[in-house]
Amino acid sequence: MTHKRTVTAHAGEQSISFSREFEASATLVFEAHTDAALIARWTGPRGTQLTMREFDARTGGSWSYLIVGSRGEWGFHGSFHEVTSPSRIVQTFEFEGEPGHPTLEVLTFTDIGAGRSRIDGLSVFLSVEDRDAMLSGMDSGMDENFDRLDELFAANAVT
Amino acid sequence: MTHKRTVTAHAGEQSISFSREFEASATLVFEAHTDAALIARWTGPRGTQLTMREFDARTGGSWSYLIVGSRGEWGFHGSFHEVTSPSRIVQTFEFEGEPGHPTLEVLTFTDIGAGRSRIDGLSVFLSVEDRDAMLSGMDSGMDENFDRLDELFAANAVT
Repeated sequence: MTHKRTVTAHAGEQSISFSREFEASATLVFEAHTDAALIARWTGPRGTQLTMREFDARTGGSWSYLIVGSRGEWGFHGSFHEVTSPSRIVQTFEFEGEPGHPTLEVLTFTDIGAGRSRIDGLSVFLSVEDRDAMLSGMDSGMDENFDRLDELFAANAVT
Repeated sequence: MTHKRTVTAHAGEQSISFSREFEASATLVFEAHTDAALIARWTGPRGTQLTMREFDARTGGSWSYLIVGSRGEWGFHGSFHEVTSPSRIVQTFEFEGEPGHPTLEVLTFTDIGAGRSRIDGLSVFLSVEDRDAMLSGMDSGMDENFDRLDELFAANAVT
């Protein structure tokens, strides 16, 4: 099954917006974004291992994880500006392999009926150059993550 | 004495950059941004009182304060994405009177010789509309804050 997904990035702007639908309620999709053990099961390329170094999903908390694969390891960290269950997460995000390029990300979780829901995401970057640098690999990375998350929902692994 | 200050906001972009020079070292200007008691002495319009509700100036920490004046009170909060002494602060910022419009702010502190230093700031907004809404009052508010901070340096109140 293919799940409706859009990515929008207008030329010259310093943001990327996306939306993605799921076969699960907003409450469960939110849970999959705020439970450290669940995040480790769907974040990162298949075949890699995510180790959570810090995770405190509340307004004012912070997070940090390491993804380890056969070709290397990649660290990421950020802070939670807002965590409002089950509808909204505002967080910062930085890839430690290229420090100095943090982003601000807003995720909104909305039920759309029949047990389904949608994430609307907005990432804003420090510059258009930062945004353009992220854009090339973002689609495939997001698709792989969210496909993995679909599999967790299909397996009833999020409750 | 007038201190060199610039504010730059290009039409159609969703960021504001500024720079401001101080008669104090980067270490002291950084200190004035990461010490709760000092922040309370220069942040907000003259005649108001700042109460720090939460303040943990470290990477992954958060902050929250209330400014009370004769015409009302205004809450603000955010999280510290990065605090690197004495050169860099990356934080989120939200005015609680208009929730849902957080910004990401990068402050860089640089010595420029003769005991002087400069802050370079960059604020990025969720949209051009958010940026434009902030732009009108930003100059005068920033000038008043930094004039108050100048007075602290002149009085050797930051050590």
